[in-house]
Amino acid sequence: MEQRARVLIDCIDRKGLVYQISKLFYDLNLNIVSNREFVDKETKRFFMRTVVVGNFSTEELKDKLNSITKSDANIKVVPPAKKSIVIMATKESHALGDILIRHYDGELEANIVAVIANRDNLKDLVERFNIPFIYVSSDNISREDHEDILLKELKKLNFNYIVLAKYMRILTPKFVSEYQDKIINIHHSFLPAFIGANPYKQAYDRGVKIIGATAHFVTNDLDEGPIIAQDVTPVNHRLDWRDMQQAGRDVEKVVLSRALKLVLQDRVFIYGNKTVVF
Amino acid sequence: MEQRARVLIDCIDRKGLVYQISKLFYDLNLNIVSNREFVDKETKRFFMRTVVVGNFSTEELKDKLNSITKSDANIKVVPPAKKSIVIMATKESHALGDILIRHYDGELEANIVAVIANRDNLKDLVERFNIPFIYVSSDNISREDHEDILLKELKKLNFNYIVLAKYMRILTPKFVSEYQDKIINIHHSFLPAFIGANPYKQAYDRGVKIIGATAHFVTNDLDEGPIIAQDVTPVNHRLDWRDMQQAGRDVEKVVLSRALKLVLQDRVFIYGNKTVVF
Amino acid sequence: MEQRARVLIDCIDRKGLVYQISKLFYDLNLNIVSNREFVDKETKRFFMRTVVVGNFSTEELKDKLNSITKSDANIKVVPPAKKSIVIMATKESHALGDILIRHYDGELEANIVAVIANRDNLKDLVERFNIPFIYVSSDNISREDHEDILLKELKKLNFNYIVLAKYMRILTPKFVSEYQDKIINIHHSFLPAFIGANPYKQAYDRGVKIIGATAHFVTNDLDEGPIIAQDVTPVNHRLDWRDMQQAGRDVEKVVLSRALKLVLQDRVFIYGNKTVVF
Amino acid sequence: MEQRARVLIDCIDRKGLVYQISKLFYDLNLNIVSNREFVDKETKRFFMRTVVVGNFSTEELKDKLNSITKSDANIKVVPPAKKSIVIMATKESHALGDILIRHYDGELEANIVAVIANRDNLKDLVERFNIPFIYVSSDNISREDHEDILLKELKKLNFNYIVLAKYMRILTPKFVSEYQDKIINIHHSFLPAFIGANPYKQAYDRGVKIIGATAHFVTNDLDEGPIIAQDVTPVNHRLDWRDMQQAGRDVEKVVLSRALKLVLQDRVFIYGNKTVVF
Repeated sequence: MEQRARVLIDCIDRKGLVYQISKLFYDLNLNIVSNREFVDKETKRFFMRTVVVGNFSTEELKDKLNSITKSDANIKVVPPAKKSIVIMATKESHALGDILIRHYDGELEANIVAVIANRDNLKDLVERFNIPFIYVSSDNISREDHEDILLKELKKLNFNYIVLAKYMRILTPKFVSEYQDKIINIHHSFLPAFIGANPYKQAYDRGVKIIGATAHFVTNDLDEGPIIAQDVTPVNHRLDWRDMQQAGRDVEKVVLSRALKLVLQDRVFIYGNKTVVF
Repeated sequence: MEQRARVLIDCIDRKGLVYQISKLFYDLNLNIVSNREFVDKETKRFFMRTVVVGNFSTEELKDKLNSITKSDANIKVVPPAKKSIVIMATKESHALGDILIRHYDGELEANIVAVIANRDNLKDLVERFNIPFIYVSSDNISREDHEDILLKELKKLNFNYIVLAKYMRILTPKFVSEYQDKIINIHHSFLPAFIGANPYKQAYDRGVKIIGATAHFVTNDLDEGPIIAQDVTPVNHRLDWRDMQQAGRDVEKVVLSRALKLVLQDRVFIYGNKTVVF
Repeated sequence: MEQRARVLIDCIDRKGLVYQISKLFYDLNLNIVSNREFVDKETKRFFMRTVVVGNFSTEELKDKLNSITKSDANIKVVPPAKKSIVIMATKESHALGDILIRHYDGELEANIVAVIANRDNLKDLVERFNIPFIYVSSDNISREDHEDILLKELKKLNFNYIVLAKYMRILTPKFVSEYQDKIINIHHSFLPAFIGANPYKQAYDRGVKIIGATAHFVTNDLDEGPIIAQDVTPVNHRLDWRDMQQAGRDVEKVVLSRALKLVLQDRVFIYGNKTVVF
Repeated sequence: MEQRARVLIDCIDRKGLVYQISKLFYDLNLNIVSNREFVDKETKRFFMRTVVVGNFSTEELKDKLNSITKSDANIKVVPPAKKSIVIMATKESHALGDILIRHYDGELEANIVAVIANRDNLKDLVERFNIPFIYVSSDNISREDHEDILLKELKKLNFNYIVLAKYMRILTPKFVSEYQDKIINIHHSFLPAFIGANPYKQAYDRGVKIIGATAHFVTNDLDEGPIIAQDVTPVNHRLDWRDMQQAGRDVEKVVLSRALKLVLQDRVFIYGNKTVVF
């Protein structure tokens, strides 16, 4: 039966690689719908995202690609189906709301499995969209104990990615290591400017003329993970830091949704602390 | 002897094309430095720009690619060498000056063969850079006669592209047909808005909040040729049309230089009235 | 009792005007929180938006300003209170949803009185936010009859502005004249490029490298009303027109919400076919 | 005799200030061509830039403004005349070249008194424009001794501002204190990201998706002075750091020229570590 798949390859580059891969596609009688490649000169790493259509077995295709690319490769053959996501938030509704509307609209290639928050004020909004809201209060509890409860809740769920839609707490290395390359965060500054707390206050104090937002994968270094998308908006002396915060929200939500879409479409490869985005 | 070349392919898409091309590169023992492909779904046309390094004969490579892609294809194998350009201008120096500085700096992959103008006030600037300035006055002469002199001058020169750096006269179909796909223009608006004369005045009268500039190949339809690059800048009620014109100049020069670089690097494919820009 | 107000003045400019106005503020013992002025050189028209705080009678302040500025002036003294809006939509949820979320969040200085649509598929979304949804089908009915029903519904409501959040029908002069300077529309192109139907298809066919959106007041000339805000996003050959439509939606919703906020904060003055935006 | 002037006021805000200033303008029978005001809420500081036309004595106007604003104020009454600038550079020609072309074009409200460089390779370019080139080699000499020679050369010249057009050496506090608020620098990053050496290499290593440039006044804290203008340009994984450097140059030159124009038009007020830009 004819099917469509995204073939994702990330391996050491060598001569003949594209030839062997395209020969395989040809031999399997696959149509190439789109193809993007990149070789990182510094690390000699090869990245490829090809959408193919044809009559093939996913396992067979994967095996054959593995035998071409050898042991170091990451090979995925992914159907263009919806993925599952869990959203974590705190109290602000703009980034969460934007994802909820897109989800409602059918625009996202994702099912929202649940929204988890450390405060309860977003409960009402989330439940208006018939999405489970899990409230895990962070009051009067240590960071570790709080995360233990979060992890217990998360273990019950089936999902591909965690989206931090303005989740305002720092995650411990333990938590992050459980979901390596699976957590997408929106940071409310143009990283690496204004790492840490209250970047809009920092931006105001510094007198910048542009503010921004950064969507990135979460690693154990605060605000230092691989960047997926960034955008900016102009500001001027008339904006105090709360005005900047307000102006920044529009950038935050657009950047987070853009990054989320790219990830859901399997367009983002992580290598070291960077990304290739096709 | 090892050499580097840009392989440019533009042909009807069919299954096995990438396989056959990459097999050829492999059989010829070529290293692929970079590769970009695109298939236009609407017209089923395939575009490819590959930079290869190896020990090969350009003619042989071209012949073999032609035998793969069949009769309808445009195949080019281009060395990454400087091209020659002629600049045509009228009286404004910002776009011309930007190109002159980049050329002086060695930033452009181009030799400027000459600057031709229908006024003489740019002579001094051009000659400061030791570049031939050819003055063909458009006063008291018909458009056709003026162009005849221009064409006569151009025939004496050897060049790949004509760059209209704010050349403020409309070219006749005769002139354009002599240099099909070889003339790059900067139009001082965000096309297709404000086609024709004094777009900044039109933009001011319309009360737009953003103005722009468009670099495009010249065809016989005024301001309707394939677009290479566009950019914009915000404006507001405080700018009168001369202020907009001034603000627009920075966009014009940046967009023209960006488009010129893309063309000089053989990154631009024309198809119908559009471009693929790799 | 101390109160805050936005003083909005739009009149013919003359020497001494600022002096007389600022003298009045001084004599009334008002604090100036912020002040923006502009004189349009072409029409010699003066615009001023001043936020004042003090112990004053709105009527008295207005009367005294009128006696300074004389008969041609538009003087408003507006409290910084929420305004009421009616949203009109058809079937797309992105622009509507963005306003609903901002409204839910308390970010908008507005109460949404109702959403009126000519299709019923947005009913579910609107009612999740407990906002009245008025369905006036446009099927099997003339444009005039449809608008008669709309007008009847609107007459029952109390509101300051109508927001067309992707309302996909053209309004007749009769309708527009009922709500002069009160209807805000989002047009899905960077006006004046691509006036009329399916601008994304037009943009795709033209091969532009940037697409945009325009928020404007509605007048009787299609897509020709005074522009409030515009923004753009880059596109390239890889996007077909549906991809452009999708990319455009993010611009549309951001631009409409930005324009709406400016209007709600009384920052937008209309003069002729243009706006002053403070 | 009728003259035009820019009135620049920067003082502590208090009630009645605008009234008294506008009364003065009225009493002196001055026409207000344009007016911009701003009150910084945090520091209660008032800023005003008014362009007036009339028959007045500059000294008298200044004295009367001083008696209104009291002792803490900075009052300037500046004719809209060309200012004089000295450019300092090292070896890159793009920012310098952009200023040279604008100056040649008459676009800048400035005379270039001289270009001073610590290398000699820009001599040829500068002299093509008949501008004095002063070469003060920084080889085999201490920073202090080098600056002593620079200062000696600068003392011979008459100028309003020093423009660092990619001058790649850090200035000592002694040098900076000699020209407080008079030195404009272009930093090749979106400050405060990537302070210090080789920001493009830093940006590449961090994997950012946007790079930028910042024009600022120079203070004793490296790259920490008041920001005048910033802009950005998108990048992606295909650009290595030299490509980013190249892409960044276009932003650098545009931002520096924009900042320079704002300063030359007396639109920039410094307060603390920030600027008000009218």
